[in-house]
Amino acid sequence: MATALDRSPSAGYHSTQKEDAYVKLCKSTCLKVYHLLEKGRGAVECVTEAVKCLEDSLLTNAGAGSNLNIDGSVECDASIMEGKKLVFGAVGGISGVKNPVEVSATLVNRQLGDKLSLGRLHPCVLVGDGAKQWAEENGIKTLETRHLITDEARKTYQSHKRKLDIVNKRDSSKKMKLTEQRDDKTEESCDVEEEEKIQDTVGAIVMDTSGNIATAVSSGGISVKQPGRLGPAGTYGAGCWAYNQRPGKSGVGTSASGSGEHIMKTLLARESALSIQREDNASLGLSNCFKNNFLESEFLEEEDDKLGGVLALKQNEGDTVQVLWGHTTDSMCVGYMSSLLKKPKVVMSRLPEGGIPGKSFTMSGVSI
Amino acid sequence: MATALDRSPSAGYHSTQKEDAYVKLCKSTCLKVYHLLEKGRGAVECVTEAVKCLEDSLLTNAGAGSNLNIDGSVECDASIMEGKKLVFGAVGGISGVKNPVEVSATLVNRQLGDKLSLGRLHPCVLVGDGAKQWAEENGIKTLETRHLITDEARKTYQSHKRKLDIVNKRDSSKKMKLTEQRDDKTEESCDVEEEEKIQDTVGAIVMDTSGNIATAVSSGGISVKQPGRLGPAGTYGAGCWAYNQRPGKSGVGTSASGSGEHIMKTLLARESALSIQREDNASLGLSNCFKNNFLESEFLEEEDDKLGGVLALKQNEGDTVQVLWGHTTDSMCVGYMSSLLKKPKVVMSRLPEGGIPGKSFTMSGVSI
Repeated sequence: MATALDRSPSAGYHSTQKEDAYVKLCKSTCLKVYHLLEKGRGAVECVTEAVKCLEDSLLTNAGAGSNLNIDGSVECDASIMEGKKLVFGAVGGISGVKNPVEVSATLVNRQLGDKLSLGRLHPCVLVGDGAKQWAEENGIKTLETRHLITDEARKTYQSHKRKLDIVNKRDSSKKMKLTEQRDDKTEESCDVEEEEKIQDTVGAIVMDTSGNIATAVSSGGISVKQPGRLGPAGTYGAGCWAYNQRPGKSGVGTSASGSGEHIMKTLLARESALSIQREDNASLGLSNCFKNNFLESEFLEEEDDKLGGVLALKQNEGDTVQVLWGHTTDSMCVGYMSSLLKKPKVVMSRLPEGGIPGKSFTMSGVSI
Repeated sequence: MATALDRSPSAGYHSTQKEDAYVKLCKSTCLKVYHLLEKGRGAVECVTEAVKCLEDSLLTNAGAGSNLNIDGSVECDASIMEGKKLVFGAVGGISGVKNPVEVSATLVNRQLGDKLSLGRLHPCVLVGDGAKQWAEENGIKTLETRHLITDEARKTYQSHKRKLDIVNKRDSSKKMKLTEQRDDKTEESCDVEEEEKIQDTVGAIVMDTSGNIATAVSSGGISVKQPGRLGPAGTYGAGCWAYNQRPGKSGVGTSASGSGEHIMKTLLARESALSIQREDNASLGLSNCFKNNFLESEFLEEEDDKLGGVLALKQNEGDTVQVLWGHTTDSMCVGYMSSLLKKPKVVMSRLPEGGIPGKSFTMSGVSI
């Protein structure tokens, strides 16, 4: 049994013009990983390769092509979890690395190996300059961050930065003229347009021929973010979760994306995985989670729009495997493949007509 | 009703020589915070002040006096959670800030205020240089990191570093003489001694006169750690958890410490809080968590010794309040105070005779 699942880009609004390119990327990633699985490669290696393909694409907000932070630089988050030993590795706010997910994979592999000298534990999560330094020391090539910046990311950045500057200027002039009546028109005209709100975080789930499940997620974070901001792709339990089948417990893998702080506060990847495991019916498990732990979560009571998406794989006791996905965002692109399917399938899932992003959710799934 | 709870230092081995100093520190912290609560100050402000006292003490591994990383520098993690709006703020791997918990408090307060311009969300977690930059921009004084380094921390660092160098030298010479038989004696003689394994992470829980619960935790991390290593004190759900009383649900606050990666993988603060809320009997809730979610956790199957400690506060439906603590480490110092108690009480909790650190746990509690 072999499964490769790739999602790129994640929850967000995808223009129909770009749809073809996304579909192509998902297909080629699925195919590449499928061939690795056929050669008997393990889940961690395969999920790393899947996310590397997605990071390398300039279409996605991960690796090259990432959103720029408010200083005009790229800082990435990425994590991997493997379901056999339940090991997690992540980097946060890392610059100057072509494939952040490769650093996470190395962190996972180190934890799976021997302890450090003097009985010290390997770190799970590394952030900032220390993460880059560790990557270098562990044989991962680094580069100048400018090589990760695409023309499109720079254009988006300039547009957002201009709007921010207008708002900030207005705010400071407001402070000087406190008696003046507030004029919200400028702010309205400065709202970040829908097209620019695309997150395009990427994620993947792989089950290898031995039944090991590994999941990964990678993101450049939100546009014009605060430098040093750690997002869900670098947070344990938020961006990805993996758990191999054990006696009396089904195997599960999840990868989540959306509005970063919403995913983090609800630990969406972990909670959706646990919810799927709790129910015999995987779809019921995922919809329960979206309803109770996300849309109606007391952790998001203050938020008007709750934006999230989850890609999940469930290995049932009879060894049947399901892929399912759900999102409260406009759209989410999902690709999947298995030895049964032979060819990669890609779905551009969209909220049904009348569905309100951040308030409604849609869900679907398939046995593979 | 007013409660101030401070724990310093946390789970770890505390020599009897130092006990007096720890007890004194806990008492003075409790008193200081109690007076703030009497003046009607809020839970977030009070818990910040509590942890600032503990960070400022050179005895503890937080703020000044923190363990040094492998480069001989100080990098701190700290977080705060508040139970009304369930907001979390944390910094990870931050240098050059006297009170890391102050940055976390500012992150919490920003989230409790208005959104950023253009509808952007405030960050929950900031790491590395970006965190320091944000602290500066938000009016928090920074300093040269060397001012946080104490003579004792430097001595411990030099001792650990010397041992690491011996092991590394032996390892590289082993590589050159692959046929030579392995000699583990050097490694044994290099093991970090018990006295040096003290973590002394600090934490606090406060319930203010309005019944709001806030929790905080702060740590310099493990000695000779990898720069950039993010520990549980900077990880959502791992180091602290807070939840105000709501209809049908008791209020709870927890603060956890111990072996960093163990606390993170088990999300010990969150899981112990949920376990306490699930049971009418708070002690049963905490012991269930230590047994099922920590000592027998499938996430720690590979670990011989599972080291953790939890300080908890439970607000029951009849508005009685309990403080409880449990640990699998040798010892944990706990201080508490309330309007009923009038004076601060401090307990140096130790594993009972025959208890094995990392394999047994002890637990106690009191109504306040």
